[in-house]
Amino acid sequence: MSLSSSAATVLADLDATREAREALYIHFHQHPELSLQEYETSARIREELEKRGIDVQTVGKTGLVATIANGEGPIVAMRADIDGLPMKEVSGKEYASTATQVNEATGVDTPVAHSCGHDVHIMGLLGALEAFHTHRDAWSGTFIGVFQPAEETAAGAQDMVDNGIADVMPKPDVYLGQHVMATLPGGHLGTRPGGILTAAKSIKVTVHGTGSHGSMPNLGVDPIVLGSAIVMRLQTIVSREISSMDPAVVTVGAFHAGSKSNIIGDSAELLLNTRAYDTDVEKQLHEAIERIVRAECQASRSPKEPEFEYYDVFPLTDNDETATGIVRAAFDENFAGEVIDSPPLPASEDFSIIPNHLDVPYVFWTLGGFNDLSEAIGNHNPAFAPDMQPTLDRGVEAIVVAAGAWLFPKN
Amino acid sequence: MSLSSSAATVLADLDATREAREALYIHFHQHPELSLQEYETSARIREELEKRGIDVQTVGKTGLVATIANGEGPIVAMRADIDGLPMKEVSGKEYASTATQVNEATGVDTPVAHSCGHDVHIMGLLGALEAFHTHRDAWSGTFIGVFQPAEETAAGAQDMVDNGIADVMPKPDVYLGQHVMATLPGGHLGTRPGGILTAAKSIKVTVHGTGSHGSMPNLGVDPIVLGSAIVMRLQTIVSREISSMDPAVVTVGAFHAGSKSNIIGDSAELLLNTRAYDTDVEKQLHEAIERIVRAECQASRSPKEPEFEYYDVFPLTDNDETATGIVRAAFDENFAGEVIDSPPLPASEDFSIIPNHLDVPYVFWTLGGFNDLSEAIGNHNPAFAPDMQPTLDRGVEAIVVAAGAWLFPKN
Amino acid sequence: MSLSSSAATVLADLDATREAREALYIHFHQHPELSLQEYETSARIREELEKRGIDVQTVGKTGLVATIANGEGPIVAMRADIDGLPMKEVSGKEYASTATQVNEATGVDTPVAHSCGHDVHIMGLLGALEAFHTHRDAWSGTFIGVFQPAEETAAGAQDMVDNGIADVMPKPDVYLGQHVMATLPGGHLGTRPGGILTAAKSIKVTVHGTGSHGSMPNLGVDPIVLGSAIVMRLQTIVSREISSMDPAVVTVGAFHAGSKSNIIGDSAELLLNTRAYDTDVEKQLHEAIERIVRAECQASRSPKEPEFEYYDVFPLTDNDETATGIVRAAFDENFAGEVIDSPPLPASEDFSIIPNHLDVPYVFWTLGGFNDLSEAIGNHNPAFAPDMQPTLDRGVEAIVVAAGAWLFPKN
Amino acid sequence: MSLSSSAATVLADLDATREAREALYIHFHQHPELSLQEYETSARIREELEKRGIDVQTVGKTGLVATIANGEGPIVAMRADIDGLPMKEVSGKEYASTATQVNEATGVDTPVAHSCGHDVHIMGLLGALEAFHTHRDAWSGTFIGVFQPAEETAAGAQDMVDNGIADVMPKPDVYLGQHVMATLPGGHLGTRPGGILTAAKSIKVTVHGTGSHGSMPNLGVDPIVLGSAIVMRLQTIVSREISSMDPAVVTVGAFHAGSKSNIIGDSAELLLNTRAYDTDVEKQLHEAIERIVRAECQASRSPKEPEFEYYDVFPLTDNDETATGIVRAAFDENFAGEVIDSPPLPASEDFSIIPNHLDVPYVFWTLGGFNDLSEAIGNHNPAFAPDMQPTLDRGVEAIVVAAGAWLFPKN
Repeated sequence: MSLSSSAATVLADLDATREAREALYIHFHQHPELSLQEYETSARIREELEKRGIDVQTVGKTGLVATIANGEGPIVAMRADIDGLPMKEVSGKEYASTATQVNEATGVDTPVAHSCGHDVHIMGLLGALEAFHTHRDAWSGTFIGVFQPAEETAAGAQDMVDNGIADVMPKPDVYLGQHVMATLPGGHLGTRPGGILTAAKSIKVTVHGTGSHGSMPNLGVDPIVLGSAIVMRLQTIVSREISSMDPAVVTVGAFHAGSKSNIIGDSAELLLNTRAYDTDVEKQLHEAIERIVRAECQASRSPKEPEFEYYDVFPLTDNDETATGIVRAAFDENFAGEVIDSPPLPASEDFSIIPNHLDVPYVFWTLGGFNDLSEAIGNHNPAFAPDMQPTLDRGVEAIVVAAGAWLFPKN
Repeated sequence: MSLSSSAATVLADLDATREAREALYIHFHQHPELSLQEYETSARIREELEKRGIDVQTVGKTGLVATIANGEGPIVAMRADIDGLPMKEVSGKEYASTATQVNEATGVDTPVAHSCGHDVHIMGLLGALEAFHTHRDAWSGTFIGVFQPAEETAAGAQDMVDNGIADVMPKPDVYLGQHVMATLPGGHLGTRPGGILTAAKSIKVTVHGTGSHGSMPNLGVDPIVLGSAIVMRLQTIVSREISSMDPAVVTVGAFHAGSKSNIIGDSAELLLNTRAYDTDVEKQLHEAIERIVRAECQASRSPKEPEFEYYDVFPLTDNDETATGIVRAAFDENFAGEVIDSPPLPASEDFSIIPNHLDVPYVFWTLGGFNDLSEAIGNHNPAFAPDMQPTLDRGVEAIVVAAGAWLFPKN
Repeated sequence: MSLSSSAATVLADLDATREAREALYIHFHQHPELSLQEYETSARIREELEKRGIDVQTVGKTGLVATIANGEGPIVAMRADIDGLPMKEVSGKEYASTATQVNEATGVDTPVAHSCGHDVHIMGLLGALEAFHTHRDAWSGTFIGVFQPAEETAAGAQDMVDNGIADVMPKPDVYLGQHVMATLPGGHLGTRPGGILTAAKSIKVTVHGTGSHGSMPNLGVDPIVLGSAIVMRLQTIVSREISSMDPAVVTVGAFHAGSKSNIIGDSAELLLNTRAYDTDVEKQLHEAIERIVRAECQASRSPKEPEFEYYDVFPLTDNDETATGIVRAAFDENFAGEVIDSPPLPASEDFSIIPNHLDVPYVFWTLGGFNDLSEAIGNHNPAFAPDMQPTLDRGVEAIVVAAGAWLFPKN
Repeated sequence: MSLSSSAATVLADLDATREAREALYIHFHQHPELSLQEYETSARIREELEKRGIDVQTVGKTGLVATIANGEGPIVAMRADIDGLPMKEVSGKEYASTATQVNEATGVDTPVAHSCGHDVHIMGLLGALEAFHTHRDAWSGTFIGVFQPAEETAAGAQDMVDNGIADVMPKPDVYLGQHVMATLPGGHLGTRPGGILTAAKSIKVTVHGTGSHGSMPNLGVDPIVLGSAIVMRLQTIVSREISSMDPAVVTVGAFHAGSKSNIIGDSAELLLNTRAYDTDVEKQLHEAIERIVRAECQASRSPKEPEFEYYDVFPLTDNDETATGIVRAAFDENFAGEVIDSPPLPASEDFSIIPNHLDVPYVFWTLGGFNDLSEAIGNHNPAFAPDMQPTLDRGVEAIVVAAGAWLFPKN
C-alpha cells in the first residue's frame, strides 16, 4: 500500500488508535440491536462523536448525522448502517454476541447478532470521522457521516428521509457507502459503475379456487393445480422474456395451499421474490408476473381476481458512472493490487434511498472481510464474523481515500 | 339359437342363399371404394335389389334408399354404410383386396380396403331386404334399407340429408344400424341404451408467437413454449374439470412448430381430438379448450388471437332408451347367450345424423366378427378381415330380428 | 309399498314402536361420540338389546355383535356404524347435538355431531333386530347385527377384525350394510353390483430440494418448482394413463413449501388423495404417482429420494354381483318405484373390511334421508340432519326385506 | 484518427488503392459462393496475392494461407472467412448479388449472397496483406493471412485443421479475426476480453411414445405430452440452474410430432439450440438437458431411451485477456473515440477452432458497417449490405493496427 500524501496525513493515527478501535468494535459486536431499535448503539456512537467534539444530530429514533465542516470545498457524505440481525451468533469467536433484545413488534425476546457486519461499518465511519476531524489541515470541504438504522428491513433509510435528513445536512456532491463481504479477499475493495446490488421486491400472490371434495374436482376449481401452473409458467420469464445479458431472478420462495389430502381448498398463496440490476428489467419482471398469474387464473376459470401485495422493496443500487470512476481511480492509486472489478452482486440494500431522495450521485463498494477466502462464511449466516484486521483498518482507509478524492487538494 | 316363429319364417332361406351371399361379400371386399366415390359399390347394390324387384332410389351421388312397403304397420329403417378405407389390405386372406382408386380430391391413385367391415354391413342389409321381400306374409308394415356413403369421413349421412333423403322415404318409427367389431365374440350382439359411441370433434388450433433468433428469445414470443404450456394445461380438463363418472378424452394428436433449432418461429399448430358420451360434456370440453388456449396465449403475450378450426365432427350416438329396450328384448329372445351389454365404445359414427334429421329414435348395435377373440384384429387396422361365418348370417338375422320387433305380428 | 307377507309379518310392529324408536334416535343424535370412543353409545345399544333378550357380545372397546339364532337356515349379518364427527351441529333442529367429548389422542374437548347419519344406521339395525326377534316364526336361520365403531377414521372395522369378530359370530352367507344419503329421495333405496364406493388412499409425498438464497437458485435445488412440476405431471395420470371408462381421481389437496419469499427451502410436502372403483385401476394410480414423483425428482437433481407415506386407506366397496341381484330383486318387489340404480359414489367406507376378512359376499345400499331433495344437505356438512320419517322406518324395513331374501321361506 | 507513425507508414497507400479495393469488393459481393464451394472466390484471392508476389498455399479445397515473412520478430495470423449464404439478396444496392450456385449436396440451384459480410473480411485481409507487403521496412516478423472457408456451417475452420494448416504456417504468437456488424456505429471497433461470442450447439432430441388411437390414450404413451413436459421443464435450466450472472440460452426451435388429430403417434422430435459464454456453463446446459429429457421419459414410462444428436457445434469465442488488452490499447491509441467495450454477443463463430488447434491466444473484434445505425440491417438478413466506406478502409486499418501491436517496432 502506498498512500497519497494527503491520505497518509489524515490516516497518520491509525496505528495509535487501533487498540481502542478494536475494543469499541468488540463492544458493538457484543451489543447488536434489532432494526429501528438501535437505541444503545446510536447512543454510544453519539457519545464517541461528542467526546471528540464532532457535531451530531439525531434523525428519527436512532439515525445520526455527524458533520465536519472544514471550509470551502466539496461536500461528501458517507453512510454506515448500524442494525443487527435476529439470530444467535455461532461464530465461535471469543467475543461472539450472546445478546438478546425484546422485539417491539412481537414482544418476543430474540437473540441478536451482527451477522451482516454492520459493526464493521460503524467502526469504519467513526474512524474516518475521527481521522478527518483530527487532520483538518490536510483537506477542505465538508465530511458528513450518516449512521443509518434498519437496513435489514429496508426501512431505515426511508425512516431518515421521512424524518427530515435533508434538513440537517447540506446536499452533498456524492454519497458513499461500503459493505464488508465474504466474497473478496480480506482488505480488498471492489466496485463497479452501474448496477452493483439488485433491486429486489417480494410479492405475495393469492390466487383463488373453489373448494370441493377431493373426489369431485369437477365441482370446484383446484387452486393447487393453478398455483403449480403459475410456478411452471413463471420460469419462462427469465428463460424467454429477459435478455440473457440482463441478470434477473424470479423465485417462488413459498407455496402454501390446502390442509387435507381429500379436500380441495379455495386459495393458494405464493411468496415471490424478484431480482434485477436494471429498473426496466425489474418492471418487465413484474409486468410478466402479473400477466402470467392473471392469465393462469383465467385458464383455471378462477372465481376471483388474484391479489398482489408488494413488500420488502429494495431499490436498485446503481453506482454513478462518473463518481465511481473517481473512487476507483483513488482506490487504484492508493491500494494497488487490492482493488477488483466487482461483479453485480446478488444482494440488495436500501443504501440508494437517501441519495436518490437528495438527488445526488452515489458510490457503493465492498470490503473483503476474510483473509482466508476458502474459510469465509457468507453474510447472514449465524457463523459470520470477519477477521478484525485488516478489515477494520481498511474500512477507515477506504472511506478516507474515497472521500479524499473530493476533499483532498488536487496536485 | 331359437328363433321366434316369424323370424324363422323370414330367415328360412338363409342356408339356401349362403353361398351366393358369401360370393357377393367377396366381390364387395375386393372392390372397396373411397368415401363419396362408391360408384361401383352403389351400382352393384342397386343391381342386386332391382333384380329381386325391390324399389330403390339414389340419394346424392352414391346413397341408396330401398323400400319394401308391405301394408299397414310400423315403418323401420335400417342403415348400412358402404365406403372403404385408403389403405392396403394385409389380412393375408386369399380374397384380400388389391384394389386402388384415384382419390378425386388429390388425384393420387390410392390402395383401398374394407378394413372397417362395411362390406359386412352391405351384405347384412341386402340379406335382410331379400328375406323380408321374399317372406312378405310373415310381417306387415314397411322395411327401408339405407345404403349410406362416406361414413369414414363423417360426410355421407349429411350428404344424404342434404340431398333430400327425407323426400324419398316415409318417416320411420325407428332407425337401426349395426357395426361389425373385433371386441365381442363372433356372432354375438351388443348394445346399450344411451351413449354407445362417442361424439368426436377434431380441432386445429393455431397459436401465434413472434419469430426471433434462438439466441435472443426475449425479442420474440416463443410459440413452442406456448404450445407446450397449452398441452400441459389441457390435461387438467379431464383430470379436474370433468366428472370422473363421465368418460371424456382430449388428445393432442399432432404438434408442429418451427424448422430450425436456432430460429424461434412465429406459430405452432396443434391438432386436437375430443371424445365424449354426452353432449353437455362435449360442450364443456370445447369451452375449456378454448378458454385454456386463449389464456395461455395471454400468458405468453401472444401477438395475435389463436385460431380454432373444427373439423371431422362426429355426433354422439345416443341410443334411444325405449327402442333399445325393444331391440335388446328381441335379441335376448332369439339369440340367448349371445347378447351382451355393450360398454360405451371409444369410436364414432355419423350414423345418428339421419335419424336426428328425421327426428326419430335410433338403435345402434355391434356384431362380433371374430370367432377367436384372442386373434381378433381391430377395425381400421390394415390386417382387419372378419371371419365370414357366422358373421354374415348373423348380420342378416340381427336385422330381421330387430326390425321384426316392430314388423312381426304381436302374440 | 306392498310388502311380501313374510316381511309384513316381521314388520308388523313398526307403527307401535315408532314413537319409542324416534325418542331413542333423538337420544343417540344428542349423544354422539368420537371414533373409538363410542362408550355411551355402545353401552346404550347393549342395554336396548339385552332388555329385549337378544344376545350381544363386545368386540374391542366399543364394537358389538348381536346374534339371533333361529334354527336351520342361512346366516345374514347386517352392519351399522356408530361413531360421530368432530364438528358442531348447525342443523337448526330442536334436537340438534350440543355435545362435546374430550379427544383421547389430543386432550382437546371437541364438539361432536352425527353429521354422517350413523344414528340412523343404529336405529335401523336395532329396529330390525327387534323385529326379527319378536317374529321368529316368520323366518329361520340366523340374523346378526354388527355395531361397528370408527368408520370415519377407517379404523373401526379393522379394530373388530383385530379383536376377533370372527370368533364371536358364525361365518355369514352375506354381509349387508346401508348408509343414509342426501343424494336420493327420502325413503328411496339405491344399490348397484360392483364398485359402489371408491377405494381411497391418501399419500403424503415429501420431495427434497437444497436450500439457498432466493437470489442464487443455481446454488440450490428448488423444491417448489419440483413440486409444481409434479402436480402438473400428475394430471396426466387420469388424462392419459387411465381408460376414460374407468372413473379415477388423483387430487393434490395440500402443497406446502417454504416460508420466506427470498429463501429457497429444502423440501416440499404434497398431500395426495386417490379414488378408484377398481383395484387394478387403484394400483395403476399409485404406480404412476410414484413413478412420476421419482422421475421429477431426478429431473430436478433432487439430493434425496422422495418419501411416500400412505394413510387413511379405505378399501373398495365392491358389491357382490349375485347377492346384490338378490337384494335388488327383494327391494324391487317390496318397494316398487322407490328403488334406483345407484351410480358409483364418490365416497369411501371401511364397510368391506369385515366381509373381506370373513371371505363372504357383501351388499351395500343407500337410503334417502331427505324428502325435499332440493333442500338436502350433504353428509359431513355440519348442517346435515335427515328427516326423521320415512327415513327411520325405511331403515328398518330395508334391512328386514334384504335379510329376508335369505331368511324368509321361499314360496 | 491519429495513426501511430508505423501504422501511418504501412497504411500510406490507402487512398491510392481505394478505388481498386472497392471494385474488387463489388466483384466478391456479386460472386458469393456456398460454404466449401468457394472455388472462384478462392481462385481470385490467390490471383490477387500472387500478382503482388505474396506467397500463398491452399489448405483443403478452398482455404488459403498467405505468408509474408519479414525477418526476425513476432508472428501474427489474421483470419478472414470467405463464404456466402444461401439467400437472395434484397438490399436494393445497385451492385447487389444476383448469383446462384448449385448446392453440391442437394443438386439444387440456389441464390447466394454475402449477407453476413464476409466479402468485407476478404477485402480487409487482402488490403492488410498488400499494405504489409508494400511497406516491409516499417515492421518486422511474419504476417499470415488465413482465408477460411465455410464459417456459416461451422465446417471450414475444422476443414483447414484436418487438411494440415499447422504444416503450412509457423505457430503464430497471436491469431486475430474481425467481423462486420450492424450493432456498432460505422467504422467503430469493439472487443472484450473473455467470452465475446457464444458457444452454440444444436441438439436433435427424439423421444419415444407408444402409438394408439386418440380415443384410447391409456393404451399408448403420448409423445406430445412427453415433449411438452420436456419443453416446460427445460425452462428451469436457465431460470433455476444457471447463475443469473452467466448468460445462457436454451431454445427449442422446432417441435414435431404426430400427423392426425385422433392418432397418438410414437415419437416426438425436438430441435434444441444452446448458447453460453463459458465452457462450464455450456456443459451444465447439456448435462441438464439430457437429465431432464431422460427423467421426463421415465415419468411418461417411455418405451425406449431418448436419442440425442449434437450438430452445428460452434465453440466459444473466448478472447485471450492479455492479447485483447494489447489489441484494445492499440485501437484506443489509433482510433480514439471509435472503440467500444463490446458486450458478449449472441452469435457464434468457428473462428476459435484454428487457434485452439494451434494452441495460441486469439482476439476477435467487431467492425461497424453502417453509418446510420438506425437504418442498419442485421447480419443474415437478405437486405444486409454494409456501407462501403469507412467500412472497407477501417477493415484494413484495424488489421494493420492490431497486428502492428506485435509487428511494429516498440518505442
